[in-house]
Amino acid sequence: MGYRAESLEKYLADAASGRPTPGGGSASALAGAAGAAMACMAANFTVGKKKFKDVEERVRELLGVCDAARETLLCCVDEDVAAYAHVSGAYSMPKSTPEEKAARRQAIQDALKVAMDTPLKVFRTCAEVLRVLDELADLANPNLVSDVGVAAALVLGALEGAQLNVEINLAYLKDEALVTSTRAALEQTGPAARDAARKRLTRCTAR
Amino acid sequence: MGYRAESLEKYLADAASGRPTPGGGSASALAGAAGAAMACMAANFTVGKKKFKDVEERVRELLGVCDAARETLLCCVDEDVAAYAHVSGAYSMPKSTPEEKAARRQAIQDALKVAMDTPLKVFRTCAEVLRVLDELADLANPNLVSDVGVAAALVLGALEGAQLNVEINLAYLKDEALVTSTRAALEQTGPAARDAARKRLTRCTAR
Repeated sequence: MGYRAESLEKYLADAASGRPTPGGGSASALAGAAGAAMACMAANFTVGKKKFKDVEERVRELLGVCDAARETLLCCVDEDVAAYAHVSGAYSMPKSTPEEKAARRQAIQDALKVAMDTPLKVFRTCAEVLRVLDELADLANPNLVSDVGVAAALVLGALEGAQLNVEINLAYLKDEALVTSTRAALEQTGPAARDAARKRLTRCTAR
Repeated sequence: MGYRAESLEKYLADAASGRPTPGGGSASALAGAAGAAMACMAANFTVGKKKFKDVEERVRELLGVCDAARETLLCCVDEDVAAYAHVSGAYSMPKSTPEEKAARRQAIQDALKVAMDTPLKVFRTCAEVLRVLDELADLANPNLVSDVGVAAALVLGALEGAQLNVEINLAYLKDEALVTSTRAALEQTGPAARDAARKRLTRCTAR
């Protein structure tokens, strides 16, 4: 079942405790899911209402994007915990002989690659939500404009947190081609996502 | 019991749905609690370890700040939901006679003041966490430096989200003295908290 079925209280207590999971990738996914949920709420207060009939079809599409992102991010809350177990398992492999050392080194590298996938998915999913928020804010029920702003704030925080978790894995990875392509992916997606979020926050409130 | 005892899945589904609560103040509180939990984790991987004996006393104090913040923010997840019920109740009061209209107007103003208290508490609590993160990052187990960075990212997002929710209440409040003092409080606390968070994020990763 994982943490998706656990209470907020239990999740937060475990995350705060002196055990390695849930860690930063998982916590970022949860914050992102909370942000995506606010975007969904704004859309759900728009679709099915006579006043917003003209934009209903498009808002339904944006709702689809944000709802799928919310579910993906909720899955990542648990995926990140599971991925860390592999890393941890690899580090605890025996290392007495040269053969054991080589096998352990390889297992660690393999596990780190898997462990990096989840925060990378969180990063990309958050970027996707940020890309649609501006249009959602323009079309959605204006009573919920501050909730779209909250979505931007929380999803941006989650994107930054996810990036830190990708980078911490990159620091230990020896596959130079993968390191280079992953850094390029972060650099290609990050700036536009950040700009979109900041623009949305500025439009909600003069700062 | 409220949402603290509900599952992550249930909370996120309700937040995303077409009902007014949980809304932006509550979602910001949850993201802030997830961030504070990461700060607690970094501290919990430091206290009780021989290697960090010299800084243990101070890290224990910082852990106390972050743990209290985590609990306060978790309480705000539900407090914000409860406060909105009062606002909603006030708006649905009868408004047929001038007396009813006046009573309704007063009830709305009273409810808005109460409703503003929760996001203001979230804002202040997040600012408090951001104030201690830099010192925590300097003293805590360096293996968890990225988790302190995640804490900064998520708590900053929560602070921004909370501020939007304070501001949306301010827009409807007619008590000019309260509006002025609340704006002053936001302006007094916000910039330093944002600077601290950004500094922490920049120190985790070159951007």
